[in-house]
Formats: sequence, C-alpha cells, structure tokens
Amino acid sequence: MDLVPQESDAPDSPRRRSFMARGAAASLAAVAVPATTQAATPDNLPPNVPQWMREPGGGFLNPPYGLPSPFEKNVLRKLPDQPAAFPTATRTPLQSLFGTTTPNGLFFERHHAGVPAIDPAQHRLMLHGLVERPLLLTTKELQRFPAVTRSHFIECSGNSMAEFKAPGKGSVQDIHGLLSGAEWTGVRLSDLLGEAGLLPSAQWILAEGADAAAMTRSIPLAKALDDALLVYGQNGEMLRPEQGYPLRLLLPGFEGNMSIKWLRRLKVGDAPFQTREETSKYTDLMPDGTARQFTFQMGVKSVITAPSARQVLDGHGFREITGLAWSGQGSIVRVEVSLDGGRAWQAATLDGPVQAKALTRFRLPWVWAGQEALLQSRAVDDAGNVQPTRAALLQRDGQNSIYHYNAIQSWKVASHGEVSNVHI
Amino acid sequence: MDLVPQESDAPDSPRRRSFMARGAAASLAAVAVPATTQAATPDNLPPNVPQWMREPGGGFLNPPYGLPSPFEKNVLRKLPDQPAAFPTATRTPLQSLFGTTTPNGLFFERHHAGVPAIDPAQHRLMLHGLVERPLLLTTKELQRFPAVTRSHFIECSGNSMAEFKAPGKGSVQDIHGLLSGAEWTGVRLSDLLGEAGLLPSAQWILAEGADAAAMTRSIPLAKALDDALLVYGQNGEMLRPEQGYPLRLLLPGFEGNMSIKWLRRLKVGDAPFQTREETSKYTDLMPDGTARQFTFQMGVKSVITAPSARQVLDGHGFREITGLAWSGQGSIVRVEVSLDGGRAWQAATLDGPVQAKALTRFRLPWVWAGQEALLQSRAVDDAGNVQPTRAALLQRDGQNSIYHYNAIQSWKVASHGEVSNVHI
Repeated sequence: MDLVPQESDAPDSPRRRSFMARGAAASLAAVAVPATTQAATPDNLPPNVPQWMREPGGGFLNPPYGLPSPFEKNVLRKLPDQPAAFPTATRTPLQSLFGTTTPNGLFFERHHAGVPAIDPAQHRLMLHGLVERPLLLTTKELQRFPAVTRSHFIECSGNSMAEFKAPGKGSVQDIHGLLSGAEWTGVRLSDLLGEAGLLPSAQWILAEGADAAAMTRSIPLAKALDDALLVYGQNGEMLRPEQGYPLRLLLPGFEGNMSIKWLRRLKVGDAPFQTREETSKYTDLMPDGTARQFTFQMGVKSVITAPSARQVLDGHGFREITGLAWSGQGSIVRVEVSLDGGRAWQAATLDGPVQAKALTRFRLPWVWAGQEALLQSRAVDDAGNVQPTRAALLQRDGQNSIYHYNAIQSWKVASHGEVSNVHI
Repeated sequence: MDLVPQESDAPDSPRRRSFMARGAAASLAAVAVPATTQAATPDNLPPNVPQWMREPGGGFLNPPYGLPSPFEKNVLRKLPDQPAAFPTATRTPLQSLFGTTTPNGLFFERHHAGVPAIDPAQHRLMLHGLVERPLLLTTKELQRFPAVTRSHFIECSGNSMAEFKAPGKGSVQDIHGLLSGAEWTGVRLSDLLGEAGLLPSAQWILAEGADAAAMTRSIPLAKALDDALLVYGQNGEMLRPEQGYPLRLLLPGFEGNMSIKWLRRLKVGDAPFQTREETSKYTDLMPDGTARQFTFQMGVKSVITAPSARQVLDGHGFREITGLAWSGQGSIVRVEVSLDGGRAWQAATLDGPVQAKALTRFRLPWVWAGQEALLQSRAVDDAGNVQPTRAALLQRDGQNSIYHYNAIQSWKVASHGEVSNVHI
C-alpha cells in the first residue's frame, strides 16, 4: 500500500471495509500506513529476538534522577548558531516535542546575569512599600499559603525577533524556541497582598530578582490582583535553578522577562519604577523613532512545528501537520492551516482541554505526494485577536522593533521534501 | 500574627479589611501568614545583598539536559526500605510533588527483567494474528499516524499492597508511590487495527514487550477499540527508557503492568492467551482460595500527600491539606476530607481541568492548633464508585489478596505534629 491514495484501494477493499465497519470512514479515510511499511511474512515473524531480549536489562536509580535515552542525546536546548561572547538565552527544541508540556530539562532560558545558586533556606521574599504591614517570608512559609496549579506558556518578547528583518536559516527551535509551556504551582499574589494590606495609593509593584543583575520590572496592580502567581512548582516538582529556584513571579500572558525569576522583593508604589529593563530595554522602537513602553501582553501566535524548517519529509503519503498556538490575551478558539501560502484555509483540530494563556496543540491530516506547498498556520483567540500576516505586522510596527513578533510563519516544502523558512 | 485565629485579628482590623475590600473574605478568612514570619524592619530591609547577587551566575547547557537544584537532591524515586536481592520497583516521591504531573525523572518504575537499551532504529512493532493484513512498523512510521495527547495516571495493581496486612511504617512514597501521572502522546490502537483489518473472530489481543521477560498480557478487544493508545511521547518528549522507550501500550485506567512497555508485538486472537502474568501472577486470591482473574480496572482511590506519614508539622496555624485522587473507571467528581477519622466530612476543592482516568489534585484549608487529628480522604468518580473504608475492602477481598488495594488512608497527627500511618 502506498501513502498516495490508489485506485486499487477502493471503498470495498478489505482494509476500507474494516474502517467502514467501525463507522470511522470519514475521519480516517486519509489514514494509510507509510509507503515503507513491510508486510509481515514468515521470514520476519517472531522469533526474531533482538539482543536486548537475550540479557537482563539495566537496573534502578542509575542515574538517581531519570534522564532521556542516549538515543535522544540531540534533543536539547541550544544557543544561537553564532553565540555571542556572553550568551543570554537557550531555545526549546519545539520540532522534537509532543503535546503541550515542555519538559523542565528543555524549558527555554533567558538570563541577564547567569543562574544564581540559591540556598532556599537562606532565600527571603520581602513585601514592602505602600502596604500596611511589610512582610518577610521564607519559601517554606509561602508554601503554607493556599496554592493553585495552572498551565501557562512563557514566551520571551524577543522570540522570533530576527524575522522582522529576513527569514532565519535555522530550525523552528532557532527561530521560535524562546517559548515553552508548563504546569505551575504557587500562591496567588493577590492573597499575599491581602496579607500585607494595600494602602489606597497603591498602583504599581516593583518585582526584583536575586540574580547578579537584580532584574527588576514594574507590574501594574491590576495584573497583580488578577492572575499573577508566586510559583515554586513547575511540572510537578520544585522550579529548576534556571527558572527561578526557589521562587518566581509568574504573570500569565505577559512578556517573559516580567515573570521575575529568583524573586526576592516586591515593593508597592504609586507609579511605575522606570527601571533599566523598561526604559532602555524592552521597549518597542516605532517607525517614527518614538518608543512604545509597557507592551506587556504577548500577542496571539502559532507556528507549525512539523513539518518545519530544516526537516526533510521522509517519503510521500499521509502525515500530520501539527504545531502550537497561544495567546497572552486569552484562550485559543481556532487555528486554521493553509497549504498554499494563505489563499485557502482549513480548520485544524485542537487537543483539549484548551486552557487560557497556555500552549494549545493543533493538528491537520495531510497527504503529501511530492507537490510544492507553502504551509502556514493562523491562530484566533477568544478576545477576537487574529494572528497577523507579516505584512500587516510590519505595517503596524515597522522594522525598527525587535519585540512582539507574532506574524504568521510560512514554511516552504520543496518537491524533494526539504522544508525552509520563507517570507512571502 | 499567629496562625491560630486571634482575638486581635478582628473583622474590622486593617488586614481583614484588605480581604473584605477584595470581596474574598469568605474564601480567605482562614488565610494567615505562618507564625514564624518576620515583620520587615529597617534592619532587614534591602540592601541585604546575598552572596549570589554579588557575582555572575552559572552559564548555559551545563548539564546539557537540565536537572533539579542540588538542594533538591533528596527528591528521588526510591527502592523499598528493605529491597530484595533483585529489586523490581521504585516509587514516586508523592510527598514532594505539586499539581498532577509527575516529572519523567521521578515517574515510578516496575520492571520484570530490567530496562532494555533499545535502539529505536532497530525496533519494530509487529501486528499479526486474526487480521486481514499483518503489519511490521518502525517507530518513525508509527509517528506518521494521526496522534492524540491525553493525560492519564498509571498505577501498579500492587500499589499499597502491604496495607492489606498492617500499617506500613514508611512515607506516602513507600506506601502509595507506585503511582504517577503524565501527558501521553501516541496513536490510537483502534487506528492501527483498522489498518490491519480485524477478522470477525477477533476478541483478544496479546501484547508483548521487548524486554528480557518478554512481558505479555491479553487485552480485551473492547478496550483496544475504546481508548487504548500506542504512546511514544511522555510529558512532551520521547518516552524514557524505563517507561518503554521507544513505544509503549497505554491502557488508561487498567492496572499498570498491562500497559506493556517496549512494545514489539500485538497478536490478535479469539480468546485470552493465559500468559504467566495473568495466571500465576496478577490474579487476586480470594478468601475461599479461588483466584479472581482479569481484574483490569483500577478502583477509585485518593490519598492525602501533605500532611502525610513521617512528616512533622512545622508550627501551628494555617496550612493546606492536599492530595491526589484518581479512578480507573472515569473522572473524579468529588473528594471529601475528614479530620476525625471519618465521622465528619468536608468537600475539598479540585484543581481543574479534571480529566478522565487522570490524577486530580484536591485541597482543603486547615488551621492546626496542636489538636490530635485523624486525616482521611474519600474519592467518588463519575461512575458512582465511592472509595471504600479498609474494613469494607477487607470484607470484600479478604487478606489473601495483594492487588487492587484502594481503601481510605488514615494519617494520625499527634499533638507534637508528627504524622503516622494508622489503621482504624
């Protein structure tokens, strides 16, 4: 059987009848085993016992904390292809991942002065400023507050920044890999503020990290009282050092740098604190030369992770087009996929449960018979935001900006199966 | 401020007013900072810059695949306190985990002949027997089928088995740690069977693993056509070696050993295959000496993970009682918690989204002022199953059995704060 639909694969063939009998003909009509699949014959039927069935396997607790198979040793975070003298970020291998969870060992990193080695017993969180009662808390004390667990993505506002200029030559990891998703556990910031008692003039909160950069950002009070969390758990276990161990501010849907890692201080004030990271950095330079400040929310965005740039399709026939969609402003309600660079669109299916400000996996069945294709995905959120084309984004933001690039990604599939990044 | 409600913490105090103003007085009335919390004073206000803010932090990709903080080095899977000469299982540290995801490095293990070191390029899945067209598939070919991602728990049918006899002296990890949860990605077994075409006499499927035990179980066809999956992804990345790399059968809600790891063969037949693992093993010895066979589904169950055995409460005042609930027969609809050994019950809150045959996190606020307590949790699923008391379970199954122990767990809290496992 071939992956390309064949005349001989008629509706009354035994295989097709087996689908029909299960009432699944409509959804599974496009499914077929890959072209290279062998039929089982007496020659390859068992017993054909591989070496690893002839001897006892490995033992327990080696290593003590479990690691991936050695055959997956290339599935890693990575630096840019031409790293700077002082690299500042690693990227998540989106092309190798399934579902919506990013394993903690592969969660992207962005540090402003490296990863501090914090002793959790010595770490403190200070809450002061315009409050009735300043607080100083240990991590253990915070863990006695009521907790919540929620799934959210984090995306660096500089993700995909090179695409403002020209199509990057790397993989989807290189281009869009400053993006990850996790299940977070922690305390509502609103609960902590309730304990301290806000004074009437309170409007903004300074958050400060315990890294050597003393990374600081101003958080609007409305966000702090809405869905902001102080998290210590990530994907079921304690935060990893590179994600803020032992305590991180999490601002769902806001640009990643505002979710201050190694959180040590919250100061309540009546105005933004105008820190370095919100004046000289993390502002958006507009075409007219002015800077747009406090663009907190990440836009609605999606990207096809397979097939994606630098992959080569390994044969004709059925395969799934799949990717991730997310929005800093709500839940994904629809993802559409185009095979022809945006002329025609088809609705992709979304894996559930879809959660707000979280990664959503989409899928579309596809039969590739060697035709050229221009693959795109377009996400829509429940606030009505539609992911823009690159042309519309440039029209709005110009090419001076380096942050908040959320345009539709185009992958070109050549007739020989190679996939590349193109701007159309 | 103390964790014990105080006369001075009156409804019109500033702190209480801050809760009231946010309309959350009802749900947060029990919240208070722990007794040991320091008030911030000029002496401990910043600057009090810790050593890790005075020097640049660590760099990237060291180790290449990220690992937990060295300060979390005791959060590991573990063998039993008195391991056998040939240990067969490690347990998940439930007392140290948050939310509902078990990190892959901490997912419990149960092997029958160790962990085979499988080269995925050489691994094959054979589907044969009562089918129109036998198939032989590589892992890559399977990954081209339509995929689904779903959250499910896996529990060993022997989890908690010692509790049939006497209360175990270990932690919740030792007693109930043959339980973990993950987000799985793979192919519907029904799709693969559709490709092969089932013959009319097909009723059962033999699943065989590529370990040195050639672990085999018989799967009823109805389960195979319902929600059975062939999974290659776990928590976003490829399966770990100890979880079946590169391919595992996943039978949601069925006893863990049936989710055959290192899956290499599926043979369709017209009757159960009566393998060693379903005749001499994994049957339940009844009080009358007969053996109950094919008890596939795991029961409805829950356990409080904090506070739990071997923990010592670190001070009076507010804390959360939290734990996990699950059912092999559907979704958790209710968890009730008792503080007095089952006389009075309160409804716990459930973290959402609640998913079928998946771990569900529950929480109940609690103020502990040094009183003795007998903590219990009782889960109910959407099929109407209610977690039994230990007495009811023994009434039904006797004490010969070692599998499917799902009785209510009782933790005794002593006045000095020590928590222990008791049978009442």
